[in-house]
Amino acid sequence: MNEQIKVAVLGRNGRMGSEAVRAITDASDMELVAALGRGDDLQEIVSSGAQVVVDLTVPGATRENVRFAVEHGIHAVVGTTGWDDATLAELESWLADSPDTGVLIAPNFAVGAVLAMKFSEMAAAFFESVEIVELHHPQKLDAPSGTAARTAALVAAARERAGVAPSPDATESDPHGARGADLDGVHVHSVRLRGLVAHQETLLGNTGEQLTVRHDSFDRVSFMTGVLLGVRSVAKHPGLTHGLDGYMDLGL
Amino acid sequence: MNEQIKVAVLGRNGRMGSEAVRAITDASDMELVAALGRGDDLQEIVSSGAQVVVDLTVPGATRENVRFAVEHGIHAVVGTTGWDDATLAELESWLADSPDTGVLIAPNFAVGAVLAMKFSEMAAAFFESVEIVELHHPQKLDAPSGTAARTAALVAAARERAGVAPSPDATESDPHGARGADLDGVHVHSVRLRGLVAHQETLLGNTGEQLTVRHDSFDRVSFMTGVLLGVRSVAKHPGLTHGLDGYMDLGL
Amino acid sequence: MNEQIKVAVLGRNGRMGSEAVRAITDASDMELVAALGRGDDLQEIVSSGAQVVVDLTVPGATRENVRFAVEHGIHAVVGTTGWDDATLAELESWLADSPDTGVLIAPNFAVGAVLAMKFSEMAAAFFESVEIVELHHPQKLDAPSGTAARTAALVAAARERAGVAPSPDATESDPHGARGADLDGVHVHSVRLRGLVAHQETLLGNTGEQLTVRHDSFDRVSFMTGVLLGVRSVAKHPGLTHGLDGYMDLGL
Amino acid sequence: MNEQIKVAVLGRNGRMGSEAVRAITDASDMELVAALGRGDDLQEIVSSGAQVVVDLTVPGATRENVRFAVEHGIHAVVGTTGWDDATLAELESWLADSPDTGVLIAPNFAVGAVLAMKFSEMAAAFFESVEIVELHHPQKLDAPSGTAARTAALVAAARERAGVAPSPDATESDPHGARGADLDGVHVHSVRLRGLVAHQETLLGNTGEQLTVRHDSFDRVSFMTGVLLGVRSVAKHPGLTHGLDGYMDLGL
Repeated sequence: MNEQIKVAVLGRNGRMGSEAVRAITDASDMELVAALGRGDDLQEIVSSGAQVVVDLTVPGATRENVRFAVEHGIHAVVGTTGWDDATLAELESWLADSPDTGVLIAPNFAVGAVLAMKFSEMAAAFFESVEIVELHHPQKLDAPSGTAARTAALVAAARERAGVAPSPDATESDPHGARGADLDGVHVHSVRLRGLVAHQETLLGNTGEQLTVRHDSFDRVSFMTGVLLGVRSVAKHPGLTHGLDGYMDLGL
Repeated sequence: MNEQIKVAVLGRNGRMGSEAVRAITDASDMELVAALGRGDDLQEIVSSGAQVVVDLTVPGATRENVRFAVEHGIHAVVGTTGWDDATLAELESWLADSPDTGVLIAPNFAVGAVLAMKFSEMAAAFFESVEIVELHHPQKLDAPSGTAARTAALVAAARERAGVAPSPDATESDPHGARGADLDGVHVHSVRLRGLVAHQETLLGNTGEQLTVRHDSFDRVSFMTGVLLGVRSVAKHPGLTHGLDGYMDLGL
Repeated sequence: MNEQIKVAVLGRNGRMGSEAVRAITDASDMELVAALGRGDDLQEIVSSGAQVVVDLTVPGATRENVRFAVEHGIHAVVGTTGWDDATLAELESWLADSPDTGVLIAPNFAVGAVLAMKFSEMAAAFFESVEIVELHHPQKLDAPSGTAARTAALVAAARERAGVAPSPDATESDPHGARGADLDGVHVHSVRLRGLVAHQETLLGNTGEQLTVRHDSFDRVSFMTGVLLGVRSVAKHPGLTHGLDGYMDLGL
Repeated sequence: MNEQIKVAVLGRNGRMGSEAVRAITDASDMELVAALGRGDDLQEIVSSGAQVVVDLTVPGATRENVRFAVEHGIHAVVGTTGWDDATLAELESWLADSPDTGVLIAPNFAVGAVLAMKFSEMAAAFFESVEIVELHHPQKLDAPSGTAARTAALVAAARERAGVAPSPDATESDPHGARGADLDGVHVHSVRLRGLVAHQETLLGNTGEQLTVRHDSFDRVSFMTGVLLGVRSVAKHPGLTHGLDGYMDLGL
């Protein structure tokens, strides 16, 4: 019989954390041994015998949480934002002292969103034209979405590396700005529509053909597929992994 | 046996005119009795016995062509642009003297494009949010497309008539103009992509649901369905009809 | 000041009924004056002063509920299934004695689904080819969906009325049944996919062009738009109306 | 100054061959030095100084053409069908005697189609559900398309390798076969619609999310992007490469 992975969740009262508690409880190959909220003592992670910590807290807490886990040789799967180049470098130094421990820093746990970004980047250099359309609920405050901006940056960098010419565009008259945002030469269009959640299309065109990569996120629960993948994989990947795709064997 | 409709084409050397010559020749219920180019004598229309004239010429010629047809009691199906309120009023006065003659002025002969616009207008008042995405080949000079601008105007007018509130939009930050053009409160996004021809989507959203009406025009030959529908229907509709949908029995 | 519409909900404990209680409570132009569950006394409808009853119960109860409402001159908006030709005829006879009372029997309250079906029917005769793709969650027991079957029937009937030839199809070899269900000459394809709720596309094709009408239902709450439309409109439509589109002014 | 690649086309009168003649003539980094039709002497390839041969002939001729090229140390880009395990093994033996020569056997030259297949295979193991919808013109004789069947096989194999459970499907009643073809556990749906050319969607679903990879082929000319990529790359890849993706640096 396979043993279950012992998991502790940090941030159990947040939206993501409470979903994670439920998902880990439901997963037959995992056992939830601890679930901590704000102010709880981190020692409980150790006393519970957790092998993996899932950190879904807040930017102000995640650094200490991960340091504690690494120092105790407990693997960490981290969805909290707020990690930058400086804190990631710090994290690398802690890991140097704990070479068997794995840490995943994942800005996005939706498997489909991660793949859509990856495929957009991979395809970018093989098409004359690339544009991005992102569609969200109308309560969203910023346009374009962070995911769309990051996708555009990846696409633009891939095209520059390959020496691809700019996407052709003969537009002479556009008095109302219908052509949308131009991010490093990649046009990005933001739709806001009641009923939607979070959706994105990368459109790639050559003479006579089009390739479309679309991701639809209907519900926050979609992130749980990625959290579980992280928990199952982190022990096999000592050191720092940045981005869930580092755990996805894309068969290449 | 049904008699064939005798048809004369004006503008036989143009892109649309040459397609029309071919389509009418191929239609089993029509006979092409004349095909005139620039400088040919309009009297040939009469001597050929044409019952219907198809005018696919240029703005500078269409007015005289249609006047000639109406004066001789020959029905006219007109795809040439350039008709405005003043010339349409003039046309009405000619038709007053020839009450059995029918004239169709059709800005768009693609049956699907006409229906897509109609459906967008019909649905507009029943949804909280409406936006339009149009996608064209990258040689196009203007954004948004004329069809998208017209659709937005129809949608906006329908919503105003019904007293619908503006589409919700909480956007506070949009430094690069990703939200596109705002035409009378309807956001319009223009994509330019190698490989495409002419495509348009109207996206309508309510809490929990979305309705999408999409038209793809892959080839200019798509206009011929509408030209043939016009030729078959014009005799049954004396007087002026503006827009191909006037001949489409939508079962309502 | 506009007076609020006094509304009673029957079936307050069901999935749809509880959503309706919430939606009516939230609507500023309505007042929820009663909410009845199984076994509650219908007299409460009268004593509460309800002007409109919303029936979201079960096939075995709806007939009596509606009869009671009509006899007391209270309008009824009915989403319960189970009405057939015989019971509808009975309902007409009750309404004959209460000529000012309106009743809406609505098999589908999602505004977008109703319009998608209507547009598919309207467009069907203007295209050579029509096929339907419906996509649902994988717990669904039957294929194709009832909505898809009904759409196919409406499309087939519209084409027959207009004398349109069958959709062209040169398929000679299809050993695994990839062409899907053939319902009255309209091919219907059923996709079952984790993550989806209820979605449907009608694809219509002519030479060089395609028209697509798509409806996405992401959440049951989408039905509430139609329920509220029904409550607001039923008093203005004495007698029986079958189908929510009877209350939708499509501007034609 | 970069030197131009000297190219000979075999099969210049076929549909693909004549497109290739035009595309190579238009490419600024290539020079068309020979274009042979049926019965022309292969020696012309040598005398013309061709560095690369593009074979777009017929199954009965391609084996001899490629053998001739390899024996003369001329690289070959081959789009002709008809290569099986036996003839590919033979080709490997010829190449053993000419180790600097490269040969590309490409069943599909549409860059987007190759990527769509690759991405479908890569994503297959990360989703609970996968289905394929392919859409073609109504003159097509077979269903499903060869590309769809090949994609389904790649998807099924990837899922089996990763030990993924079968896609969930609770269908109990499907009297008309709406669920389409079941190929190794992957449902494939074939739409036939006037106006379409060749289109394919892979739909992948997890709880709360969907990933869609779609390829649209609007015109045969789309294959030329892949032919030119082959001509530019073949000299850098000695030996046999099977599939255009072998030349596509996917940045992994």
